[in-house]
Amino acid sequence: MTDLLITNACIVTGDANGTQMTGALAVTGGVIDALIPQGSALPRAAETIDAGGAILAPGLVNTHCHAPDCLFRGLVENLALEPWLQTVWKAEGAILSEETCRIGARLGFAELALSGVTSVVDMFWFPEQSMLAGGEIGLRTCAGGAWFDLPMGMDGKTPSDRAAMCEGFFQQFPRTDMSIPGIFPHGAYTVGPDGLRAAHKISSAHKGIYSVHAAETLAEVEDIKTRYGNTVIRHMDALGILDERTILAHCVHLDDEEIAILARTGAVVAHNPVSNMKLASGFARIPDMLKAGVKVTLGTDGAISGNDIDMWLAMRLAAMLHKGATLDPTAVTTQQALHMATQAGADAMGLGKIAGSLEVGKQADMILLDMSRPHAIPMFDALTHMIFSANKSDVTDVWVGGTRIVSARELVSYDIAPTLDAVRDLAPKIAATIA
Amino acid sequence: MTDLLITNACIVTGDANGTQMTGALAVTGGVIDALIPQGSALPRAAETIDAGGAILAPGLVNTHCHAPDCLFRGLVENLALEPWLQTVWKAEGAILSEETCRIGARLGFAELALSGVTSVVDMFWFPEQSMLAGGEIGLRTCAGGAWFDLPMGMDGKTPSDRAAMCEGFFQQFPRTDMSIPGIFPHGAYTVGPDGLRAAHKISSAHKGIYSVHAAETLAEVEDIKTRYGNTVIRHMDALGILDERTILAHCVHLDDEEIAILARTGAVVAHNPVSNMKLASGFARIPDMLKAGVKVTLGTDGAISGNDIDMWLAMRLAAMLHKGATLDPTAVTTQQALHMATQAGADAMGLGKIAGSLEVGKQADMILLDMSRPHAIPMFDALTHMIFSANKSDVTDVWVGGTRIVSARELVSYDIAPTLDAVRDLAPKIAATIA
Repeated sequence: MTDLLITNACIVTGDANGTQMTGALAVTGGVIDALIPQGSALPRAAETIDAGGAILAPGLVNTHCHAPDCLFRGLVENLALEPWLQTVWKAEGAILSEETCRIGARLGFAELALSGVTSVVDMFWFPEQSMLAGGEIGLRTCAGGAWFDLPMGMDGKTPSDRAAMCEGFFQQFPRTDMSIPGIFPHGAYTVGPDGLRAAHKISSAHKGIYSVHAAETLAEVEDIKTRYGNTVIRHMDALGILDERTILAHCVHLDDEEIAILARTGAVVAHNPVSNMKLASGFARIPDMLKAGVKVTLGTDGAISGNDIDMWLAMRLAAMLHKGATLDPTAVTTQQALHMATQAGADAMGLGKIAGSLEVGKQADMILLDMSRPHAIPMFDALTHMIFSANKSDVTDVWVGGTRIVSARELVSYDIAPTLDAVRDLAPKIAATIA
Repeated sequence: MTDLLITNACIVTGDANGTQMTGALAVTGGVIDALIPQGSALPRAAETIDAGGAILAPGLVNTHCHAPDCLFRGLVENLALEPWLQTVWKAEGAILSEETCRIGARLGFAELALSGVTSVVDMFWFPEQSMLAGGEIGLRTCAGGAWFDLPMGMDGKTPSDRAAMCEGFFQQFPRTDMSIPGIFPHGAYTVGPDGLRAAHKISSAHKGIYSVHAAETLAEVEDIKTRYGNTVIRHMDALGILDERTILAHCVHLDDEEIAILARTGAVVAHNPVSNMKLASGFARIPDMLKAGVKVTLGTDGAISGNDIDMWLAMRLAAMLHKGATLDPTAVTTQQALHMATQAGADAMGLGKIAGSLEVGKQADMILLDMSRPHAIPMFDALTHMIFSANKSDVTDVWVGGTRIVSARELVSYDIAPTLDAVRDLAPKIAATIA
């Protein structure tokens, strides 16, 4: 007998052919075992949910997030980048600990889960807290050992501690389908060539995910040119750290040859349109990257540059911003935007065979979207609706590997109320750090 | 005795000083009669609502909408502008009538009301249907006689009919605080100099609102240059149609002198960041306009270029997009974005003295925002939250002139269910027009 049957759904499979169908989806043992066209015979099931015409779609994959930064959302605004960063770091330095990172990660992951995210790449201090919080909320979570050349990091560690810490992280979190370890050096302007190479070597030995900020701002590009006589992507390529397990966050300022390097090496881009706009970083050349065959995925970045962490806004902007920036109304299709936010993200996390689309044999990572509100009517094409009309609050139900983590717009995998109270209690203390 | 008292609110007044306060707001006869700091004595009230810490803010003002185009949302996508327009017009031509425009206007206005919009400028065929639907839903509605040089418009009228029709529109809808008539010529590329001037003369005689598309695309600018040897704003200025009752939608492609013309004449800009992106029109020079003292307001444009009509997305983009486009993280403040979406819009509709902010003596056009969801926690500054974290689904309650039109996220002013059913019934017919 089937465990779960969702009937009367408008299914956006997110498969390579862009298949959409009306009908039912069956899940057994957490795995999708049938997609059944409307009108065909249905298997018996332990649980049946009538979707009533709602859209059933793959869960979203957020490939660049700093969930614990949700603690600081909206704290510092209307400043130029340099004083903004100094103020944010002051607050982070005073507040961050294992305990507060766990609280912040729970807060951010709850927000993500409620919005239909089922997998996340989270880069932060105390990455074990992200891993543990991801497990509590029920998301497929990729976190990586923090690597900086700072004399002392916010985790109280020095550069000489990093290699052992990162080795230990792989021991503490062996790779599973739910828990994907890696190493996340901050960037080429905060980690020197030796550190970037050493971290990559350790990560590769464990087949880990290696994620790093890259070419986010013009200032960064100039800085790397001054230090190393090269642009950021060329510098990274020369160090041998670009491969298909490398996720490069931002990639706003690239020239044609750097785009070709990304295509050649298979390195993945995490596009963060909201953050790049709000922090005045600029607009990434996504249409050119797609044309060149670069693997483009989507991220929210952290809530200090958001100020929510909303993959729906990221998807819509991915499909819309580049039309405005290039004056080409065909730049980035709805199909490409969905792919970035689902299958391409799953591929980047090494989960592409088990997640990223609704296909028989894959894990049931999926979401239901309310289609009863006026903004969802009329609906001529479900994919168009998802990219251009839907928003995060339309997500009513979320499953990861067949386990329901959100039901009727509420998180059911974890009691988040004490976390929300803890954050409210912490807020005055956070505000005081920059008063 | 006070009619309505809202207590324990985080009040974003939207006044000229950016005043925020915690406390209560009292309404009598539809008018705000007190703002009462937390802890002070409260008047007796017929109805008391405990906001429980929710944000109480001015209702939003959408100065450029085509509500009946909600019937076509998502119908035509992924085309270049010219074939896109031809296809949209084909569908509109086959479907639009007095009846369908009324249905479409109800649909769009329901969506706007649910998202916290309390006043709207709606430009469409059969503008009397927009006026009537606005009255049904309970929005302050500004519509204007349609004016084209087309041999025959979608309303079956010829150019020679326009002047009498528009005169008649002012007779049918005398100006009140809820119903603001005007004349809306489509644009300088669809209405010749004589028509633009004649329409302006009639509108001015009635102190009406005069709204027109202007400088939306580079192609339009080139077209006007070819025809009249002038850029769009210079052409309009030379015709004498720019004054403080003129609302110019888009204004994407302006030079410095045209920005100065807008500042000098007091003409109002309706900025539509979502539409300008999605239709690949470009990015309006909003920071330069604000510096020059141009009156900038916000619009959603229609749902065929949206595909929802979401003032929260417009506000966030107004505050965010220009940071990315100019690489200046201080471009457009949260205060400026709120002003565009509230007081400046009310001013443009001639409602500035009675609406646009929460101040004693003004009509109670106001909204409550749910602050209990994870994306609203922590909250350091209510205005920052409104612009960068909130979204339309956070709006729980909406009042216009003290009358509640939305309660607990449901429209209570009008039974919208039959309209939604009618649109669902109409959808296959709409799809068939372009099949």
